[in-house]
Amino acid sequence: MFTPLRGAAIVGQSGGPTAAINSTLAGVIEGCFIEKDAITKLYGMRNGIDGFLDGRYCDLSAIFSDENGSPDRDKIKMLETTPAAALGSCRRKLPKPADDPALFETLVGKLKELGIRYFFYIGGNDSMDTVAKLSEYLRTSDYEMRVMGVPKTIDNDLMGTDHTPGFGSAAKFIATEMQEIVRDCAVYTVKAVTIVEIMGRDAGWLTAAAALPNLVSGAGPDHVYLPEVPFDMEAFYSDIEAAFKKHPNVVVAVSEGARFADGRYVGESAQSGAADVFGHKYLEGTAKALELVVKEKFGCKVRSIELNLPQRCAAHLASAADLSEAELCGEHAVGSAVSGVTGSMVAMERAENPGSESGYALKYVTKDVSTIANAVRAVPREWIVPENNNVTDECLRWILPLIQGETEPVWKDGLPVHFVLES
Amino acid sequence: MFTPLRGAAIVGQSGGPTAAINSTLAGVIEGCFIEKDAITKLYGMRNGIDGFLDGRYCDLSAIFSDENGSPDRDKIKMLETTPAAALGSCRRKLPKPADDPALFETLVGKLKELGIRYFFYIGGNDSMDTVAKLSEYLRTSDYEMRVMGVPKTIDNDLMGTDHTPGFGSAAKFIATEMQEIVRDCAVYTVKAVTIVEIMGRDAGWLTAAAALPNLVSGAGPDHVYLPEVPFDMEAFYSDIEAAFKKHPNVVVAVSEGARFADGRYVGESAQSGAADVFGHKYLEGTAKALELVVKEKFGCKVRSIELNLPQRCAAHLASAADLSEAELCGEHAVGSAVSGVTGSMVAMERAENPGSESGYALKYVTKDVSTIANAVRAVPREWIVPENNNVTDECLRWILPLIQGETEPVWKDGLPVHFVLES
Repeated sequence: MFTPLRGAAIVGQSGGPTAAINSTLAGVIEGCFIEKDAITKLYGMRNGIDGFLDGRYCDLSAIFSDENGSPDRDKIKMLETTPAAALGSCRRKLPKPADDPALFETLVGKLKELGIRYFFYIGGNDSMDTVAKLSEYLRTSDYEMRVMGVPKTIDNDLMGTDHTPGFGSAAKFIATEMQEIVRDCAVYTVKAVTIVEIMGRDAGWLTAAAALPNLVSGAGPDHVYLPEVPFDMEAFYSDIEAAFKKHPNVVVAVSEGARFADGRYVGESAQSGAADVFGHKYLEGTAKALELVVKEKFGCKVRSIELNLPQRCAAHLASAADLSEAELCGEHAVGSAVSGVTGSMVAMERAENPGSESGYALKYVTKDVSTIANAVRAVPREWIVPENNNVTDECLRWILPLIQGETEPVWKDGLPVHFVLES
Repeated sequence: MFTPLRGAAIVGQSGGPTAAINSTLAGVIEGCFIEKDAITKLYGMRNGIDGFLDGRYCDLSAIFSDENGSPDRDKIKMLETTPAAALGSCRRKLPKPADDPALFETLVGKLKELGIRYFFYIGGNDSMDTVAKLSEYLRTSDYEMRVMGVPKTIDNDLMGTDHTPGFGSAAKFIATEMQEIVRDCAVYTVKAVTIVEIMGRDAGWLTAAAALPNLVSGAGPDHVYLPEVPFDMEAFYSDIEAAFKKHPNVVVAVSEGARFADGRYVGESAQSGAADVFGHKYLEGTAKALELVVKEKFGCKVRSIELNLPQRCAAHLASAADLSEAELCGEHAVGSAVSGVTGSMVAMERAENPGSESGYALKYVTKDVSTIANAVRAVPREWIVPENNNVTDECLRWILPLIQGETEPVWKDGLPVHFVLES
């Protein structure tokens, strides 16, 4: 008979927030309720490893139980539709265990004190690095604890998984706003260029998602520019000229990470010539930099828009597919750990499912986390058109299943209700 | 027995788009179906007066009828949840009739040719000016045509009406995004200031709406800065210091129109010292200008966010109350015109309704348009706190009924479906 490792569990959130990271937390909570024979209690780190090292944690089993000790589904549902990271986050990157064994000793000592046998960490690249280093340290220790990473990043740039929870919701928000912006810009007959800047410094997945309306309704940007390929100013001008032949309202999306062939960012800050009313030096964004240059070149109305933080926190427009997958990743982490897996990250594998309408299905697996951390997955070259100014329909069809379905937050007085952990 | 003026009608949209202007158009269409004994047909101007003078119009009665000649409700519903202006827009301001009588003669000639007896124009200040001037001209002409304005502007700065259709949806979007941004910023424990720039150059209604979460959930900005009162840099620094005493994540909202006591805009462009990679002069926004100066003063992480165009086109998050009121304004314009009103704008009057839960009710009336055009309604001084860094709860309670209720766009492949007029 299989006797699972028995003890408490702890979960933390780390790195930048997303609209889906709380759904993953909900999945870990649900998973611990399911595995209650092995997991006696679930703690939450406040502000990730950082807060935990400072002695800050909470009792999630108590917070998410109803009076009968069963999961409080209303509270869990509210958590799922809350943006940001309910436990708080941090940006700490751990040193190598060999460089600072005392730190790891302290950390493991504190975990031991609470009887923790299961450690779940939800995050992106840096967080998976934390999982890898803690696992490495534990192999040299006599304390048995299973360590699992659960992926999260709107950038979709983690290796080893088909895509990352958080990406689908950001993509849905970006695609919806792009479609609305394109409709808005189309109302006038005077020539105008609108340049929309999209997050993702090293990978162009989110910028690619800006083109989704082209596949669905036709109301998408004329061109999109990804950081994976060099940005060419003359080609950009030609693209705008070509778009003006089709309609007076040109809309393009550009990655914040767009770079010239020589490696300089298009939005590179100017370090000389202070010029504003406060006498400050000027740090401009990619879209703003292009706005100024296009205005001069074409002499028409030019507007730049940075979609900014709402890309990662617009929970009111989260993708139902994304939230559901995020939750299943959390549950799978718990189930896998209880069945013996450690030092791994939950990953999704895309399967063909000719039975489903979209042909899309997922398999949840685990991957050795040491093979995943610290690498960036870019948009494949063959999904960017040879002219470097758009993505292929194949790329868009690959993203499309990830933005399907709408979530239903609880509304009160006209605003979504969020779950808030008392401090 | 009352014999109404019988003939065709025409409707146009003008000025900046909003998430609600198509609901008003839907109301005019519905109104014309209701008044079919008087109104034989409804035309739509393409791109407002501008397009109509160029001979561009369409047959809305045909487009929005089903095969039995009844209103096509599915199409009308889709129109209501479509952002921007379905008929297209323009920014033309007409001259005084005395200055260019030939233009008015041409315009009225073209209307006469189509047998138009009812003229509906949906827009803001400039559009009401058009309605006023056309009415003035008609008083000297022997052609009987009734001219009605229907208000629209996200800025809520029109005189003569309790509020304007379009404002509620923009306010709901701003308040929702502010709440999400506040949640997002709260995940870290390091000191940071986030400055969110809100539309509304001359009136602070939308910036006031950014504070709505403070009334509903407490998760709103620490301070809001309206263009109605002077912006004081030293007071702004003190406000940030005071907020830091409460929490490490300070979030403020500031109007794009914020001005110093001497009248200079906070985001005033610097006209000297070209400095970017292209050698361009720098035009900065209000939030960006403050970002640079706060970064220098406090040495902490500072982020600026411009909510930008989505404020006026985020139909996916429109206020149900706003869309419904916008539609009723359109219907009321038609009903009033048929009953003999002309040279007027539809207006809303707020009535006390102790029977309803919110105590909020509206009455639809008409006002002489010549008393409305070309004036700006600001946020009353007594609704801004004496320190000039926030609005009062009374102000927020006044805005709150306008953001109530969520709309349900039709979704296809993960994106909202919009109504598009064929060209």
